[in-house]
Amino acid sequence: MLIRSTFDIQFHLPNPAVMVALLRLHPSVLGRLRAEEELLIEHLGTSQFAGVDPIVPIPAIDYTDSFGNICSRFVAPAGHLRLSGTNVIEADGQPDTLYPDAQQAAIEDLPTEVLQFLLPSRYCEVDRFGGIANDLFAGIPSGWERATAIRDWVHEKVTFNYNAARPTKTAMDVFTERIGVCRDFQHLAIALTRCQNIPARYVTGYIGDIRRIPTGPGDFSAWYQVFLDGQWIDLDARHNYPRLGRILMATGRDAADVALTTSFGAAHLTYFFVDSYELDAEGNRVPQPGSGMAVAASTNPSELSLPTQTNASQASPTQTQAATT
Amino acid sequence: MLIRSTFDIQFHLPNPAVMVALLRLHPSVLGRLRAEEELLIEHLGTSQFAGVDPIVPIPAIDYTDSFGNICSRFVAPAGHLRLSGTNVIEADGQPDTLYPDAQQAAIEDLPTEVLQFLLPSRYCEVDRFGGIANDLFAGIPSGWERATAIRDWVHEKVTFNYNAARPTKTAMDVFTERIGVCRDFQHLAIALTRCQNIPARYVTGYIGDIRRIPTGPGDFSAWYQVFLDGQWIDLDARHNYPRLGRILMATGRDAADVALTTSFGAAHLTYFFVDSYELDAEGNRVPQPGSGMAVAASTNPSELSLPTQTNASQASPTQTQAATT
Amino acid sequence: MLIRSTFDIQFHLPNPAVMVALLRLHPSVLGRLRAEEELLIEHLGTSQFAGVDPIVPIPAIDYTDSFGNICSRFVAPAGHLRLSGTNVIEADGQPDTLYPDAQQAAIEDLPTEVLQFLLPSRYCEVDRFGGIANDLFAGIPSGWERATAIRDWVHEKVTFNYNAARPTKTAMDVFTERIGVCRDFQHLAIALTRCQNIPARYVTGYIGDIRRIPTGPGDFSAWYQVFLDGQWIDLDARHNYPRLGRILMATGRDAADVALTTSFGAAHLTYFFVDSYELDAEGNRVPQPGSGMAVAASTNPSELSLPTQTNASQASPTQTQAATT
Amino acid sequence: MLIRSTFDIQFHLPNPAVMVALLRLHPSVLGRLRAEEELLIEHLGTSQFAGVDPIVPIPAIDYTDSFGNICSRFVAPAGHLRLSGTNVIEADGQPDTLYPDAQQAAIEDLPTEVLQFLLPSRYCEVDRFGGIANDLFAGIPSGWERATAIRDWVHEKVTFNYNAARPTKTAMDVFTERIGVCRDFQHLAIALTRCQNIPARYVTGYIGDIRRIPTGPGDFSAWYQVFLDGQWIDLDARHNYPRLGRILMATGRDAADVALTTSFGAAHLTYFFVDSYELDAEGNRVPQPGSGMAVAASTNPSELSLPTQTNASQASPTQTQAATT
Repeated sequence: MLIRSTFDIQFHLPNPAVMVALLRLHPSVLGRLRAEEELLIEHLGTSQFAGVDPIVPIPAIDYTDSFGNICSRFVAPAGHLRLSGTNVIEADGQPDTLYPDAQQAAIEDLPTEVLQFLLPSRYCEVDRFGGIANDLFAGIPSGWERATAIRDWVHEKVTFNYNAARPTKTAMDVFTERIGVCRDFQHLAIALTRCQNIPARYVTGYIGDIRRIPTGPGDFSAWYQVFLDGQWIDLDARHNYPRLGRILMATGRDAADVALTTSFGAAHLTYFFVDSYELDAEGNRVPQPGSGMAVAASTNPSELSLPTQTNASQASPTQTQAATT
Repeated sequence: MLIRSTFDIQFHLPNPAVMVALLRLHPSVLGRLRAEEELLIEHLGTSQFAGVDPIVPIPAIDYTDSFGNICSRFVAPAGHLRLSGTNVIEADGQPDTLYPDAQQAAIEDLPTEVLQFLLPSRYCEVDRFGGIANDLFAGIPSGWERATAIRDWVHEKVTFNYNAARPTKTAMDVFTERIGVCRDFQHLAIALTRCQNIPARYVTGYIGDIRRIPTGPGDFSAWYQVFLDGQWIDLDARHNYPRLGRILMATGRDAADVALTTSFGAAHLTYFFVDSYELDAEGNRVPQPGSGMAVAASTNPSELSLPTQTNASQASPTQTQAATT
Repeated sequence: MLIRSTFDIQFHLPNPAVMVALLRLHPSVLGRLRAEEELLIEHLGTSQFAGVDPIVPIPAIDYTDSFGNICSRFVAPAGHLRLSGTNVIEADGQPDTLYPDAQQAAIEDLPTEVLQFLLPSRYCEVDRFGGIANDLFAGIPSGWERATAIRDWVHEKVTFNYNAARPTKTAMDVFTERIGVCRDFQHLAIALTRCQNIPARYVTGYIGDIRRIPTGPGDFSAWYQVFLDGQWIDLDARHNYPRLGRILMATGRDAADVALTTSFGAAHLTYFFVDSYELDAEGNRVPQPGSGMAVAASTNPSELSLPTQTNASQASPTQTQAATT
Repeated sequence: MLIRSTFDIQFHLPNPAVMVALLRLHPSVLGRLRAEEELLIEHLGTSQFAGVDPIVPIPAIDYTDSFGNICSRFVAPAGHLRLSGTNVIEADGQPDTLYPDAQQAAIEDLPTEVLQFLLPSRYCEVDRFGGIANDLFAGIPSGWERATAIRDWVHEKVTFNYNAARPTKTAMDVFTERIGVCRDFQHLAIALTRCQNIPARYVTGYIGDIRRIPTGPGDFSAWYQVFLDGQWIDLDARHNYPRLGRILMATGRDAADVALTTSFGAAHLTYFFVDSYELDAEGNRVPQPGSGMAVAASTNPSELSLPTQTNASQASPTQTQAATT
């Protein structure tokens, strides 16, 4: 099965700003790439009218961060910025694999590079959840059963709401407010999982409504991974059933490590489009069930008002920080 | 100038626990080592009377974490655990160097491995301090001047108090409560510094009262480093004057990354002794000014009641987490 | 000048719920009432089609709370609930009075019933703002000058955004996030003001766009009062210029005390309309400048998705609590 | 049974300060007073040597706050301040009454003055505990059974530790840190109780080790009351077994309302002594079991270092606020 993913994100920058984007595919999936991965970073000029100014490519430097993600750093001039890209990946067409017998390793047997995913991080306050996690989950058999009990609990207790996103929201906020976006579901699940000595890390990537009834405008997604049986296994406290077509972009301790874009200086989101869909043998889009037309809608930019939020379902894809001075 | 550092930390463990200790010297200082660095990890038995049971060495595995620190992982049996060590380092005998002309690099010119030290981390909520840092420091010339203005501000506003330590305390808590231990001073300074686009990282190490009037029982210390002029420069919001004899043990985003000990299972601190002092040519301790006797006092273990705190001045050297299950 | 105010708020209740509404005028303004104040509480039935079921009045008990506000308590059946009302008040037609010479009393001279408005309350963490308030305002002359400096600072630093409302948001959240609705502006100003020993209390009421260009759908509003020169003086950190036509409904320590509605059980907001406008001698609406048509728009209920938010500008008019059991 | 209670609290004030003390007995217990209640407020001078300066009474104004507590307001000169008092109360000698059949009223049947004790307050974030309280307690029969289940849960989960007190600590902090002083136990229990629609209020008073083995230096205590069967019933999440000799001083929403002393300006605690004990027919102290000598020890003032804490078991009896300006 082939999956084509594409995105177009635009910002208006009142001043030049340095940005770091994590919009490339993760190195671990590049072996399944079936068409060249493209990331375009372009300056659309300063006019408020589209098409007036010439489109000028912005050079970027790619580097690999300490988690193994490919990051792109560039200097964006004031005005309109577009980040767009596309890729085609071969997938096995199977929903997420279940590992009902997966065991969690004793701490002393964990690979040392995995230990960091047991520690507290910005949005996953492991140091505050110890008693809570024990109350809820200490009685459940360890390993897969406990890991999925945590995922299911979060899924059941937290209600999805796009309006409940904010960049500073932590796992503890989610635990008390019981409302959030996909970023928030995963942060709470990660914090609880780490408290039970199962390494857990945050993931960003594509996950389209493939072979499913479309659920709305496309978006990047966040899920998480737990380390059981010596491998990282995908779990998703937002969509807690086996999904098709997860395509990994980046992993980190939490959303602070893998923001889609981090801008040093103001960057106001003006347009946002993501789509990820199945291709048939001719390279055409496979229609989804219950969908007369197979065109994903773009999100209305007028609904996206916060400069620090590229992507409502992840809440802080843009970590806008102080202007470069 | 030669500096000898030594420590003896003891815990009582009700059950076996896995521990990770960051009690080794940092690789960057090993070139100045003048006697073999020793780290002993020993089981003292289970009797409540010292010396009854034989002392049994506990094997540990050393590894290097993603920040370049040397970590030791081991399984401690139930009962009494002792971590002790010693080392002798050659130091230049000079107080901290000042860099009044040091510049902060533009974000686009920073080494990529340094960028992570601009991001939010568990105890340094960069995402919540943006406006605050701008209000206080945006008007000060960038680089060294702004970095030290932040350090001085924290030093002036926060009052030291051993009783104000707690493992969950964040930079925002320090900003509002205005009281804390050395860990807390540095966390607040780091958060404010990152908000001004200066990379900042947390440091643990030795810093004895060398050539100074003794100030009390020895302890490990925390300070921080800012990245200016292409190098990491020591700053210390707790002791904001040039100090002699800093000896680096570990660096990380904040205290969550470099806890002296992280135990997976309960570990109750029962004894704590740290000393770092100058040696003369014969290898004898150089007396400190105003000190009739040159013997550092140990901290009374009865005053150290919290299982999660090895070291009151750093508040969470032991991140006691859930028991290994 | 006559001001007519009117509102219509509707909820859907999945189950019966007890509610407390603070939707009456404050006793202090009843002397200026020029038409009978009306508060209708009605059950609209359970059909999803308007007008199918008969409208049945719901009896309520009015009482005065410890702050002197008139509260209405009632039991609402499952189904559709409407709270509506109207009143006509005589106002002097003058904008908010300025008191540039107003002094703050010594604590020992304050009326004792005013002292509670110096203490911490749910959304105004006076105990966390002491150092911050001193840093910012201790150097400004006391009394009116300091009180208005606080108001102006909050107004300048915080950006209004309807999407930034949430029921749990405190003054500290506003201070760090720098974004909020009118409730949030006032909470931050109140916390800072109390820290400077000026009693401050939270106010809800009407404040229409009278003799001004309409700014959007009508709404209730929040402002605050400071106690200077022996009297409570209106200040408004959201609209920090003299406004016409404030009509007081309730005062308390903060929004927790004076939620427009508190429901014990789920209550989903389905319709929200508030209007407050000037009447001419014939009792007709005086057109606003720049407004061809003098009809206030209602807020589209589909945009109001959170069950706990009657009124986006105040964020938690409905404190939905646990179901009555 | 007669109980004599006495206290002596001393502060050093660097500057004059206004203070409000809630150190009188509650009006509801005055009918059981068997000797005149005495509250002495005295200036001990400015010398660091006791007895050098004459002792000068400081006049205070008593008033009743909105909760019905008797408060004393006074202006203390710079120097040494002593608050001391004594009273003798007749008690029935019975431990706390149990009410296993007590019912919680429907919200619509609660006296209106009780409704405020269902709302969020500074240290009891009812708005953040709704989901948590439902998870834990919604399945337990309402009324006494649920109220005591909450009390028992808090008692079991939270560990007492004098060092874990701090003035800003909220119920949510207690829930996550699982450690605290008596103030903290009650705050958590109150927040959870209100979430289950049972009115709950905070209480301060005396509770000596009467007819019990002494547990340490005397202290004031905090407990809480729930409103069941139309009356306020004492519960105590710290000592959750029936106690003798509770003597009520003040009630409020939480500790912010009933701090033993609130000082407007710095006030450093230098001495602290509280005792509450049974009298025999001759007016002599009845010895406690297991106590060779019946003299309560005073707390060593050198252990009480925080200016904002009069009383470690309540954490914020002194709400030191900004100096009067």
